[in-house]
Amino acid sequence: MENLGFYNGEYDLIENMKIPMNDRVCYFGDGVYDATYSRNHKIFALDEHIDRFYNSAELLSIKIPYTKDELKNLLKDLVKKVDSGEQFVYWQVTRGTGMRNHAFPGAEVKANVWILLTPRSIKDMSKKVKLITLEDTRFLHCNIKTLNLLPNVIAAQKTEEAGCDEAIFHRGDRVTECAHSNISIIKNGVFKTAPTDNLILPGIARAHVIKMCERFNIPVDETPFTVKELMEADEVIVTSSGQFCMSACEVDGKLVGGKASEIVEKLQAALLEEFLEQTK
Amino acid sequence: MENLGFYNGEYDLIENMKIPMNDRVCYFGDGVYDATYSRNHKIFALDEHIDRFYNSAELLSIKIPYTKDELKNLLKDLVKKVDSGEQFVYWQVTRGTGMRNHAFPGAEVKANVWILLTPRSIKDMSKKVKLITLEDTRFLHCNIKTLNLLPNVIAAQKTEEAGCDEAIFHRGDRVTECAHSNISIIKNGVFKTAPTDNLILPGIARAHVIKMCERFNIPVDETPFTVKELMEADEVIVTSSGQFCMSACEVDGKLVGGKASEIVEKLQAALLEEFLEQTK
Repeated sequence: MENLGFYNGEYDLIENMKIPMNDRVCYFGDGVYDATYSRNHKIFALDEHIDRFYNSAELLSIKIPYTKDELKNLLKDLVKKVDSGEQFVYWQVTRGTGMRNHAFPGAEVKANVWILLTPRSIKDMSKKVKLITLEDTRFLHCNIKTLNLLPNVIAAQKTEEAGCDEAIFHRGDRVTECAHSNISIIKNGVFKTAPTDNLILPGIARAHVIKMCERFNIPVDETPFTVKELMEADEVIVTSSGQFCMSACEVDGKLVGGKASEIVEKLQAALLEEFLEQTK
Repeated sequence: MENLGFYNGEYDLIENMKIPMNDRVCYFGDGVYDATYSRNHKIFALDEHIDRFYNSAELLSIKIPYTKDELKNLLKDLVKKVDSGEQFVYWQVTRGTGMRNHAFPGAEVKANVWILLTPRSIKDMSKKVKLITLEDTRFLHCNIKTLNLLPNVIAAQKTEEAGCDEAIFHRGDRVTECAHSNISIIKNGVFKTAPTDNLILPGIARAHVIKMCERFNIPVDETPFTVKELMEADEVIVTSSGQFCMSACEVDGKLVGGKASEIVEKLQAALLEEFLEQTK
């Protein structure tokens, strides 16, 4: 198959799939998701993404109708049905189906499981990214990977219109994260990244970069930093599951970073090696 | 019909309707809605709700594929197809259908129009409501009636578990609104209600109450108020399209209000009369 859309056991090409009008996602965005990549039909960092997914669901009291192993096996089976081995592997759970009513449905209503598989490769990390800054107007539950993504949609549109690659969110002076990524800086040899509180998603690529920093004895400082610190950093690093670790060359049209490329390249090489090894 | 679900020209019982898996509502909650009530198959305050709906869509650059008159006529026709004349009349627009991608789809992708009609009567205003308070953790676009409603869903569930009717949101000390309603207070004969900024929805029932206050020479003060002011108010007033103007007897288990019932009853009688007149 060219791509695959799965909903509660049924699957087909995504564009042929339909779902009930009364899935609570349609009125409330009442669900959570997670996503990673596959290569050679092997899914990268699946255990970590599944753990985060169950944690997101738990934080909203959504009961996923599979065990972690059942869901992992389902994903592993389905990626084999798509022609390309390099896929964006996306899944979500929504709280259930029933007449529109804000409060949770009764215990007899089961959550709905969705899977989307589309051909897509991880990005070339040698490319430098261009960023814009935007005030972070999102809700205060950014640690949960929910389907309430309107501010991210608006940010993505503004980014595209600016001819850039990502938008940096900041609450006042404090940099939080990007619209689809975490953001970190390198200054005087130290890797500085915001702590994982309710203002940012605990990124899995971010965790892998921290692990690589530890391996290379690069000090890691998990404290918030400001827009000014970012503009004056030696490197500005954007991390996500689709691009691992990209360094920025421009923020709001001003040149940034480019002063610690040896550290960036060391991290990128280690991350790529880990990905290729896990998916060989 | 018992109820009616409409999606881009097709309609059936809501529980029979399906929508494409790739409607952007499914991944981003990328849409806006509005809702009112009908009686005798006549829709109350339709012009005002339609105006707010188009304004919500405009604020998110969603192009509704109908003129206001076309949508009004469609709603007026469809309410006649449902057996009960007393209906909850709900409609929404989502940005379109296409493979999951945060940025807006191309101009060739049309927005999707949804309508839900379900039998429901407006609430009896003589009942006193019980409220809980919750920290307002929502995003900073509460003036737009979006489908990103997870914090409202969580609040509704907490309200139900507490055996109460509504949740009051506050940002620190400042009362903003309720999870599905606006909130106001009466103190020393003055009707005090938060101004319509980005922290609250410009409620249509709220606007009608203000209009009635003006008719009765009750002074209106549109400035923010605190939780303490609310607890010490002569009356605590919850307004929404489904219940117009309800007064509260309890907040977080403590007795409130009940000291200006003659004003409350005057407002309620005038609002009910307006509704009955428009829908006779």
